[in-house]
Amino acid sequence: MKVIADLSVVPLGVGVSVSKYVAACEKVLREAGLEVRLHAYGTNIEGEWDEVFAAVKRCHEVLHEMGAPRVSSNMRFGTRTDRDQSMADKVRSVEDKLKS
Amino acid sequence: MKVIADLSVVPLGVGVSVSKYVAACEKVLREAGLEVRLHAYGTNIEGEWDEVFAAVKRCHEVLHEMGAPRVSSNMRFGTRTDRDQSMADKVRSVEDKLKS
Amino acid sequence: MKVIADLSVVPLGVGVSVSKYVAACEKVLREAGLEVRLHAYGTNIEGEWDEVFAAVKRCHEVLHEMGAPRVSSNMRFGTRTDRDQSMADKVRSVEDKLKS
Amino acid sequence: MKVIADLSVVPLGVGVSVSKYVAACEKVLREAGLEVRLHAYGTNIEGEWDEVFAAVKRCHEVLHEMGAPRVSSNMRFGTRTDRDQSMADKVRSVEDKLKS
Repeated sequence: MKVIADLSVVPLGVGVSVSKYVAACEKVLREAGLEVRLHAYGTNIEGEWDEVFAAVKRCHEVLHEMGAPRVSSNMRFGTRTDRDQSMADKVRSVEDKLKS
Repeated sequence: MKVIADLSVVPLGVGVSVSKYVAACEKVLREAGLEVRLHAYGTNIEGEWDEVFAAVKRCHEVLHEMGAPRVSSNMRFGTRTDRDQSMADKVRSVEDKLKS
Repeated sequence: MKVIADLSVVPLGVGVSVSKYVAACEKVLREAGLEVRLHAYGTNIEGEWDEVFAAVKRCHEVLHEMGAPRVSSNMRFGTRTDRDQSMADKVRSVEDKLKS
Repeated sequence: MKVIADLSVVPLGVGVSVSKYVAACEKVLREAGLEVRLHAYGTNIEGEWDEVFAAVKRCHEVLHEMGAPRVSSNMRFGTRTDRDQSMADKVRSVEDKLKS
């Protein structure tokens, strides 16, 4: 089952600047071979369900290893059986409507 | 790794009433032996990471089997290494502050 | 326009324990006269759109006044025009399906 | 108070294809003069709190006017008092960490 997701990780108890932790999670996702795209409030992820969620778990583990005592994530994830759709398809589909 | 989570599943392409699908997912979570608590915009879940996410995957599969061509979920999930905390602890901790 | 919502506020840069801040936001929501229900990963809110979002803004302001340099929230909110539905209705609707 | 946000709108009861509705909301956000950036699972938004949330309310209204009986949104939004930060700053901050 393929999934398109969007993940936002928030480490708590490490001060106000969290970009070091977000970057570490980003690295985990990329090294997992997933298609990822960073934006200003999270990261788009595309891949097989088990691979995506294994990488998300690894993110939490890595952030704890880096010293974050608490990690709170927010994630959107969608699956569909009617047709195959990529992240690029989703964006293009909306942009086409905007032009017309 | 224990996780406290909150899941909101939204089936698309099945009309405006989605409670049948939400109930099916609720059943999946309960049958997985997880501690769950339904509220007005999602379900609190407490358990081991792998068991929680296996049940969430099963929710998507079951909703597709029921005929939903598309399922979009939104989930919050938190892990912590500083201490063990249950869902009941979290609520009590806030309620204690409200009384004082 | 009535809205049913679910809010989770996360103050950053104030250490690992955030219940004091969550309680302060809870107090803001209650004092705004909204119907609220605290759970383990957020708070259900029911009310008129403008009143709900004015209270959410006040939450951010109060948390900053308490010393949180950064506040990151996650919120679900739904509106419907087909019929009037309360938070209690939503929960009951799912629970009825679970019994049958 | 400035806010950086990320909005995902889901119209219910209009079938499986929702890009027309997402595009309509995108148009509302742009016409409000906000800085927006569409991605595969939502839209980044930057602006003054009141302007951002007025536009989000308008999105719900427009989707209902288009015929969606139900609209469920998921939104992340963050405010900070320690320093001024743009969406571009946030992305750059993480990308710098990835290079080093």
